[in-house]
Amino acid sequence: MRFPLFSTAAAGYNGKNIIVFSGDLDKAIAGFIIANGSAAMGRKTSMFFTFWGLNILRKPDKVKVKKDFMARMFGMMMPRGSKKLSLSKMSMGGIGGKMIRGIMKKKNVESLESLIQMAKDNGVELVACSMSMDIMGIKPDELIDGVTIGGVAAMLAHAEESDMSLFI
Amino acid sequence: MRFPLFSTAAAGYNGKNIIVFSGDLDKAIAGFIIANGSAAMGRKTSMFFTFWGLNILRKPDKVKVKKDFMARMFGMMMPRGSKKLSLSKMSMGGIGGKMIRGIMKKKNVESLESLIQMAKDNGVELVACSMSMDIMGIKPDELIDGVTIGGVAAMLAHAEESDMSLFI
Amino acid sequence: MRFPLFSTAAAGYNGKNIIVFSGDLDKAIAGFIIANGSAAMGRKTSMFFTFWGLNILRKPDKVKVKKDFMARMFGMMMPRGSKKLSLSKMSMGGIGGKMIRGIMKKKNVESLESLIQMAKDNGVELVACSMSMDIMGIKPDELIDGVTIGGVAAMLAHAEESDMSLFI
Repeated sequence: MRFPLFSTAAAGYNGKNIIVFSGDLDKAIAGFIIANGSAAMGRKTSMFFTFWGLNILRKPDKVKVKKDFMARMFGMMMPRGSKKLSLSKMSMGGIGGKMIRGIMKKKNVESLESLIQMAKDNGVELVACSMSMDIMGIKPDELIDGVTIGGVAAMLAHAEESDMSLFI
Repeated sequence: MRFPLFSTAAAGYNGKNIIVFSGDLDKAIAGFIIANGSAAMGRKTSMFFTFWGLNILRKPDKVKVKKDFMARMFGMMMPRGSKKLSLSKMSMGGIGGKMIRGIMKKKNVESLESLIQMAKDNGVELVACSMSMDIMGIKPDELIDGVTIGGVAAMLAHAEESDMSLFI
Repeated sequence: MRFPLFSTAAAGYNGKNIIVFSGDLDKAIAGFIIANGSAAMGRKTSMFFTFWGLNILRKPDKVKVKKDFMARMFGMMMPRGSKKLSLSKMSMGGIGGKMIRGIMKKKNVESLESLIQMAKDNGVELVACSMSMDIMGIKPDELIDGVTIGGVAAMLAHAEESDMSLFI
């Protein structure tokens, strides 16, 4: 006798769904720490990067792609990749971010870059929002490896297999 | 034979519950895109507008209502309606918001105003937080049509019929 | 005959899980109003304070604890306790926060301090994130009474017993 759907857990509804809207360093760190914790518990974990959150997934180096004027301007104004992000508070011209990174290193907390790598190694699904890419003029080649591209419907479908959704 | 409660979906627990605390243009757009995606999937979708989020629901024109001094001051200082909202980042004195709106138009993404209308047409429930209205001195007549007024308990009741709640 | 797991509610999966990342006065108030509403409905409610959210739980007075230089600097720069928090918008050098507090008092809405006390009285679990404490150099003695210390895994375990998780 099987009870496949009697509890949300048994039914497979224990995924974790994290929408990363913000491109702030501290919020990105928080999102990846939660995602890695979830993956360590064996949960299907998905992160959906939209709006400013897309910047976290940008390659640090300039990638040669065709862009119109607006997309080029946006691309220049926004931080290119995880190392360029600022804090949401006490940024102080970038000093705050450097302080946090220094302390994390000293306390043996993984850097954002390590956290991203861990997430990929642990099977966390990293999805870049297709509509945001279109609006902000970011091309697939400009994103780090291991990222898939998806829309809001895919994110909502994952939410329905999850017992936790966050908007970060 | 029926299995009405065997899965969360079958039990009707697949609503989507979005708390809109922020009054930022970009976050409002994100909230309505998610809500409209959910409604398109046939899910019961509710948005609860609280604190600064209330400003999204204000009528663009000044409405003649009785207010005390504090409420009048607040009303003047806060943006009146969706067209007056600023970006959470790169606002640059309003230029950022205009840029985003321009790009969205060019890319055939609906404007915030169309997204709000779509939400209403698709049956998304728009609820203004009664306590926030009281604190900020906003009267029912100052809100756009099609909005209901409710409290935290109603929001939580909807959360219990949902498999996703977001705080935006 | 018992149907203990047929619905999420029957299965006990109706907890409420609130991650408080932000240390803004308005967001803290929103978080505690939702938590108290949930507790009033008899739901198991847990708040997990991480990053800037930790500041909400700091005792208002300086506590004599051993700290290294970096932790001391952080401690001085960050607001010590609920009475020192600023608004996320319209802070205007602290005037905004005073206005909101004044209006809330006039409208008989509980102050943040009363909301925190209510939460403790109503059995809301207040958890300080251990990793954030370590990074920001905050010691257990610096936190208000009635707070427990826990990690991300504990927060995720509570999320799995909840039908709503928020990231504030």
